[in-house]
Parts: sequence; C-alpha cells; structure tokens
Amino acid sequence: MPELHELRYSECEALLRAGVTGRVAFVEDGGRPVIVPVNYAVVGNAIVIRTSPYSLLGTHARNTPMAFEVDQFDYVNHRGWSVLARGTSKVIKHEDEIEEVRRVWEPQPWAGGSRSMWVRLRWDDLTGRRLGEGWDPLQGTPVRRSL
Amino acid sequence: MPELHELRYSECEALLRAGVTGRVAFVEDGGRPVIVPVNYAVVGNAIVIRTSPYSLLGTHARNTPMAFEVDQFDYVNHRGWSVLARGTSKVIKHEDEIEEVRRVWEPQPWAGGSRSMWVRLRWDDLTGRRLGEGWDPLQGTPVRRSL
Repeated sequence: MPELHELRYSECEALLRAGVTGRVAFVEDGGRPVIVPVNYAVVGNAIVIRTSPYSLLGTHARNTPMAFEVDQFDYVNHRGWSVLARGTSKVIKHEDEIEEVRRVWEPQPWAGGSRSMWVRLRWDDLTGRRLGEGWDPLQGTPVRRSL
Repeated sequence: MPELHELRYSECEALLRAGVTGRVAFVEDGGRPVIVPVNYAVVGNAIVIRTSPYSLLGTHARNTPMAFEVDQFDYVNHRGWSVLARGTSKVIKHEDEIEEVRRVWEPQPWAGGSRSMWVRLRWDDLTGRRLGEGWDPLQGTPVRRSL
C-alpha cells in the first residue's frame, strides 16, 4: 500500500501556483469552521481571491486566520496530493495594489454577481503531501494556470 | 454568466452520500483553521472518517466543531457544485458502534499506516450550491460510492 510523503516546499509552491480552484477555511463567530470553494491565483507570494463583500467569505475576510487547500485525487490509481497554505487574510484596499494584482490576474469568475472585494492570503506556513511514488503531481493536474 | 443556486437538502444529502473523498476543517489551538483531505463514507446520518489517533485530525477529533466539504468542478463547461456539512465530531469508541459502521463501510484506505480511530461527524447543518442550470450534479461525479 502506498505511503504518504511530505512534499518539498518548492513542490508545494509549484502546485499552489498552478491551480485554478481551491478551498478556503475560516472560523465563524462561535468557533465553527467553514469551507468555501473559490477561484484563485497566486500573485507574488500570496493567494488572491475575489469575492463579494456580502458573501460569507467577504464578511470574514478582514485579518482572519485562514487555511487554503488545493488537492487532486486519482481514483483509478489511488494516487493523490494536497497542499495546505495558512496565514492571515487581508482585504486589498488601495487601488494601486489592486492594479498590481490585475496586471498578473484578471479573474474571470465562473459565477455572476458583483465581486468587488479582493482578499489576499499571504502564507506563513506551506505544507503538502503526496500518496505514492514514481509520478509527478504537477502532471496530474487536470487544468493548469498559465502565467 | 451562470448564477449560483442553492441546492435542496435532498440534493446535498445525495451528493454527500455518493462521495468517496472530501475535506474536513477544524480549528487548532490558537484559533487557526486547518483543512485535511480524507476518504469517508456516510453511515446513517453521519460522516465517518478513519484516521490515526496520532494524526492532526486524530488529535483534534474529540467533540470538536468541524466542517466537511465535497465538491466537483467542470473546468471545460465552467460548472460546479459544492456541499458543506457542519457539526461536532465524536470519536466512536464502543466496539458495537464500530461494528455497525463496518457493516456498511469497511474502509480501504489509500495510504498505509495504522488508522485505528473512527471519527463520526453528525451534521446539524447541510447546505450546497451549484453553478449553472440544465445539468445533474450527480451525473458529474467522477466516481460514486456504491452502497
């Protein structure tokens, strides 16, 4: 049976930068965690998410401890990998910062609705694991961001 | 652009019961959330996960507020769905309860290692969303648990 292996930091970063969708977790008042799937990009050394200020994410995005996860499962070969980034979220407010993000990533959200809030998660912790050996996790991604 | 639609409770439950892998979020001491991908099954009205008592999940599984998420993204057609179950985790200790779970689900973990701890998450909140109309989320799952 395949064993779990820790991914190197550089592998975690490459997988995180390649991704298109992930999941963010944060804690609501009362201490209950919540998980929200999102489109994202890595800009510089931070995850950037665009959301509505009225969404669950938008109302909890200011200076909040967050976890961000990307993963891929290969059900046929029982392979897989996951990467977890953790840090404290910030809302990007200055127009020049938003412009900086837009130069790298102009999000094309899948869903309609106003998404005027930009959230940045600079990770202070980045770890990942893979299941099994002899294969390249980056080759297993179904889609890859081209930056 | 497609809009987000709330899934009915029955749809959320069907998608949750059909799944094979998901992600659990909980809060570490200090208030930082963490996300861990897991194999799971729904047994009765609870999510059941098998883990090691020494894992991050195992050391936080006793009477802890948890979120559990399953999702599927269709990158070609920009469709997708996600389901979020929330509740408080319990460790299953009684042998007869473990037997009850095993009658329904004998997990075949992908990874090696001892996984002697059974964690049950009975949801008190189950919600979900889909992106776009005119398609069946259950038909979009790459694999489906056959119970």
